[in-house]
Amino acid sequence: MLTPAELESLRVVLVATRNPLNIGAAARAMSNFGFPRLRVVNPYQPAFREARSAVGASAVLEGAAKYKTVAEAVADCTLVVGTTAVRRRNLQHVVRRLEDGARLIRKRLASNRVAILFGSEKSGLSNEDMSHCHWLMRVPTSEQNISMNLGQAVAVCLYELVRDARAPRAPEKLAPATAAEVERITTMLLEALRASGYIGLRRVADVEQRMRRLVRRLHLPARDAVLWLGILRQIVWKMNSGGAPDSK
Amino acid sequence: MLTPAELESLRVVLVATRNPLNIGAAARAMSNFGFPRLRVVNPYQPAFREARSAVGASAVLEGAAKYKTVAEAVADCTLVVGTTAVRRRNLQHVVRRLEDGARLIRKRLASNRVAILFGSEKSGLSNEDMSHCHWLMRVPTSEQNISMNLGQAVAVCLYELVRDARAPRAPEKLAPATAAEVERITTMLLEALRASGYIGLRRVADVEQRMRRLVRRLHLPARDAVLWLGILRQIVWKMNSGGAPDSK
Repeated sequence: MLTPAELESLRVVLVATRNPLNIGAAARAMSNFGFPRLRVVNPYQPAFREARSAVGASAVLEGAAKYKTVAEAVADCTLVVGTTAVRRRNLQHVVRRLEDGARLIRKRLASNRVAILFGSEKSGLSNEDMSHCHWLMRVPTSEQNISMNLGQAVAVCLYELVRDARAPRAPEKLAPATAAEVERITTMLLEALRASGYIGLRRVADVEQRMRRLVRRLHLPARDAVLWLGILRQIVWKMNSGGAPDSK
Repeated sequence: MLTPAELESLRVVLVATRNPLNIGAAARAMSNFGFPRLRVVNPYQPAFREARSAVGASAVLEGAAKYKTVAEAVADCTLVVGTTAVRRRNLQHVVRRLEDGARLIRKRLASNRVAILFGSEKSGLSNEDMSHCHWLMRVPTSEQNISMNLGQAVAVCLYELVRDARAPRAPEKLAPATAAEVERITTMLLEALRASGYIGLRRVADVEQRMRRLVRRLHLPARDAVLWLGILRQIVWKMNSGGAPDSK
């Protein structure tokens, strides 16, 4: 997890964005992933702060700083990273996989400010923009359609920054049933199979073992085991009571 | 890298999407990451295929299939995964971190179809929608603003699926049952519960959803699904025929 100070140390820099809705979308993704600092360089529409459809992003938009040049927008950062969809347009720059780039950025954020640049919808970052960057980071889009929507590209990059492979994981499995619980279910199932005539029909010698394996392959959580046992009990009771459902 | 066949095996399912632009945005992200199969369930705007601003996504949009119910939209899949921003709305479901979920999905895609469900912009997936899911996957948004734009959420999830290029994939052991097979078991189980009086005893409003979730948590292999369906059929037949086991 990034700390609040680290989240605060990232500058998302949108360069020459054409559609203010995309600035709003970028702000929304920033808000979703906890990054508060937006900078815009020469947006086509100066009134970008009114961008609609930026749910929950108004604080980010209101706090956005506007710059005339990339140089000014990144002046206080010690690492400047450009984003690109292209594999090898700029042999002048190192192009890193998004994951590898994000790892380096996270490290740097611990003590310094970092800027990530996103170019315009139409043509991405210019060579001039990129010349301010230490290296580039590539979102792994397919060769057939490398052009990502700006808001989606921002969302993916920020997600990769907050994603932390080593973050402690919440236990995700449900507590499993004990062997005794599973065996009770097996017994009750066998009773149901006999009462229904299923076993008589099949005449399989090792039916008990088959059913035992079948039930074990369910890998039941403890709480579901209780439910299934109740269901089977009711069914067995019903079959043994002999009444058709409508007859009561 | 996912193979073309694996990319082809994923179904992105948009449920009750309100804004056709968001369907277009989802299609664009799919196109960016190479996933061709889009399914929509009851979109608010039937003419979603005309969604603008979906650069490069026209093939995905044109090939999109439209369904009336979630059950139909996921019928041919063996793993159905819901997406949510919420941490613990549904204690009924296992909620996995996006990374962990993506790993499991990638594994399954090696041999089977998988559906990922995205709910409406307004309220996400309903409990009824989720009852068709085996588990849920959470995008790690900040507590302060968990509500992601739909197109951005799709982009982040698909990115996470294609991200891990190097993860070695072990084929799963037993072929899993399809959603259609699992739904047939659910239907038969509900019939058994009604015939046995189990449902009448409990009087739970959402019993169908509960049972749907219960059955999905079994993660049945295809061959066991056939067995369980036969067992339930026999039991239902027996209860409806009304004879006690000794009376024949």
